[in-house]
Amino acid sequence: MDIESANQTAVTRLMEARPFLKGVAKALDVIPGMRPNLLLHAGPPITWDRMSGPLRGAILGALLFEGLAQDEAGARALVERGEVQFEPCHEHAAVGPMAGVTSASMQVFVVENVTHGNRSFSNLNEGYGKVLRYGAYSEDVLKRLRWMNEVLGPAIGAALAGTNGLDLRALIAEALHMGDEGHNRNKATSLILLKQLAPLLARTLRDSAALADCLQFMGDNALFALNPVMAACKAMLDAMHGIEGCTLVSTMARNGTDFGIRVSGLPGQWFTAPAEIPVGLFFSGFSQADANPDIGDSAITETAGIGGFAMAGAPAIVTFVGGTPKDALNATLEMYEITAAESKNFTMPALDFRGSPTGIDIRKVVELGITPRINTGIAHKNAGVGQVGAGLVRPPLALFEQAVLAYAEKYEL
Amino acid sequence: MDIESANQTAVTRLMEARPFLKGVAKALDVIPGMRPNLLLHAGPPITWDRMSGPLRGAILGALLFEGLAQDEAGARALVERGEVQFEPCHEHAAVGPMAGVTSASMQVFVVENVTHGNRSFSNLNEGYGKVLRYGAYSEDVLKRLRWMNEVLGPAIGAALAGTNGLDLRALIAEALHMGDEGHNRNKATSLILLKQLAPLLARTLRDSAALADCLQFMGDNALFALNPVMAACKAMLDAMHGIEGCTLVSTMARNGTDFGIRVSGLPGQWFTAPAEIPVGLFFSGFSQADANPDIGDSAITETAGIGGFAMAGAPAIVTFVGGTPKDALNATLEMYEITAAESKNFTMPALDFRGSPTGIDIRKVVELGITPRINTGIAHKNAGVGQVGAGLVRPPLALFEQAVLAYAEKYEL
Repeated sequence: MDIESANQTAVTRLMEARPFLKGVAKALDVIPGMRPNLLLHAGPPITWDRMSGPLRGAILGALLFEGLAQDEAGARALVERGEVQFEPCHEHAAVGPMAGVTSASMQVFVVENVTHGNRSFSNLNEGYGKVLRYGAYSEDVLKRLRWMNEVLGPAIGAALAGTNGLDLRALIAEALHMGDEGHNRNKATSLILLKQLAPLLARTLRDSAALADCLQFMGDNALFALNPVMAACKAMLDAMHGIEGCTLVSTMARNGTDFGIRVSGLPGQWFTAPAEIPVGLFFSGFSQADANPDIGDSAITETAGIGGFAMAGAPAIVTFVGGTPKDALNATLEMYEITAAESKNFTMPALDFRGSPTGIDIRKVVELGITPRINTGIAHKNAGVGQVGAGLVRPPLALFEQAVLAYAEKYEL
Repeated sequence: MDIESANQTAVTRLMEARPFLKGVAKALDVIPGMRPNLLLHAGPPITWDRMSGPLRGAILGALLFEGLAQDEAGARALVERGEVQFEPCHEHAAVGPMAGVTSASMQVFVVENVTHGNRSFSNLNEGYGKVLRYGAYSEDVLKRLRWMNEVLGPAIGAALAGTNGLDLRALIAEALHMGDEGHNRNKATSLILLKQLAPLLARTLRDSAALADCLQFMGDNALFALNPVMAACKAMLDAMHGIEGCTLVSTMARNGTDFGIRVSGLPGQWFTAPAEIPVGLFFSGFSQADANPDIGDSAITETAGIGGFAMAGAPAIVTFVGGTPKDALNATLEMYEITAAESKNFTMPALDFRGSPTGIDIRKVVELGITPRINTGIAHKNAGVGQVGAGLVRPPLALFEQAVLAYAEKYEL
């Protein structure tokens, strides 16, 4: 088994992948295996009885949004009668931040890796505070989701329809030179996306009030680009998944209860362990005691070599996740220890334009005892509340130990 | 003479100034002292016979734009008959990048310092390459200027009409956390400005094609925000000009032949010396031999404590002006040596959110022999060509020596 060669193949595929934002469409129409009674969620597989508060809240909200239930009690009953199925976004070429709940009617971004041809999907970002992805499902949350589904999503879809799509890899690369790290800080990314979409929208959306609302909503949400960025990372990483003998991580994801990883050379397997509780800065009125365990598919950014791995180029993020600019720099430097390559696409001016650490090697993680760094939002542990802060977290080392053992077993090392 | 107290008063006024972008209007209608046969230009006062190529080119272009001449020969004849008057932008509460030529019909940004009530003005930014401000005046240059004057300017003016204006100080502060330094790198600033204007434009400009053109033009020009940023710096600095006993610089500006400075405690006087030739990176096909001496009012940004003074927070700028991220860091550190204060508004994450060096003290410059650092665009030395690169430059030390002597004389030290 030539591991180095397998890993090199994986890294090359990852870096040659060119994800383009191609459109927006209804999940049922585009996501492989999507069906009306299926809810996709973040992280590894999980059953209702083990779900944390924010994931349950998002599930209930999605059932109300779909009209499958008329109220919370009805939604719970539906779940408890076993009439709703749950599967990971990641098993449907999709990703979603935080709870990541994606239902059949939802409008989703369609991303295509034009190098290798695979597609990926992500729902639309709702903004801050009380939002479905953090487990909130009050009427105002659902109302916003309906507007996003009926106005915003179709408008962006129509705007993109006459184009070749937007080059998300180039967009991320540019934003990393503008103080973003691509996970918790997507200010520049969102503005560049807005800049690219605005004239397209003006040409296709003739309702001035709706157009103004769309431009305002996107402009007010500095995380708007997070979801297409996640889908871009997913498309890149799916292109390096399933390479025989490869020891690089192709997925890191959390469902609010378990942290799960997948490894390129071990397709079909999730390695899971209880998720940690992130440590960070909290919004006024909330504290560490309110924090849910780590949740969301957004660690796909770190898996692709941005997010916490590219913090050296995003010193201003410490105002959001805590720590000092020096800590941010050190986070990136540490990640070079456990990765196989330096990105050719994503560079950091502050490190003399060095490429970001890319391709997490399970062997290095276990050997050095250094786990990946992840920037993350923090959800309230109870359903219905929403986001309470942002901070830093790492996956349990046990995941990587399990993966190394499974690798040794499969490849008879 | 309590110099420290005078300088403290100046610095306080500079930092308390809050420039808002209030609107766009015709220069003749809003700029004090503007008249049909007057052309404003960058830098200190200068006569036609001493003007460099790019300033002459911009003058000829402005006369064609105004319809005062039908061709280049006619425009030259008009100037040579003494029928055109030239005065510095700076003496009319205005600033313009590079040649800075502003004529009576041009649409200009109107900025108001809402703390102290003074206003400032700047023309609209045309983008890159062959543009009037770099001395180009071909028909395509004039056509773009006409579109800016007939469509873009009035559209932005109408969009702002129903608002309280846009807080430019907050905008600059945010952009400095996004890799901009506010002079040569205004990518984030321009995107934030676009984000703020886009929904306002959508609500007021009902012609979809024109709206799309405006959004596209602003989005394609990463220097679009330079001009309102310069006007913001001008409004801040005018608020600290003319303070008895103050030794801080309130203006640095170049006309392509001379570099000129003004000092707060020495109102009514320009100190001038021959401008240096910037050293930097050149566009394909051009070299250092093509470079005109330093030109433009854009050094108002450095005078206000951003631009070259805030390069530590903008390491990616070295791809445009040359040098390394370490050089950019050192540029800022050096400027602390010759300034009176650290900005409360403009901070740099890379320096642990330290405020940028602010308030250039002529005494420190002369005592240490350290002149201010300026990022700048580089114009071709011949009229009609345009921008050929970008780089770094410093004012001659002689300016500050002259100013110290004049100060000693006025205040009998």
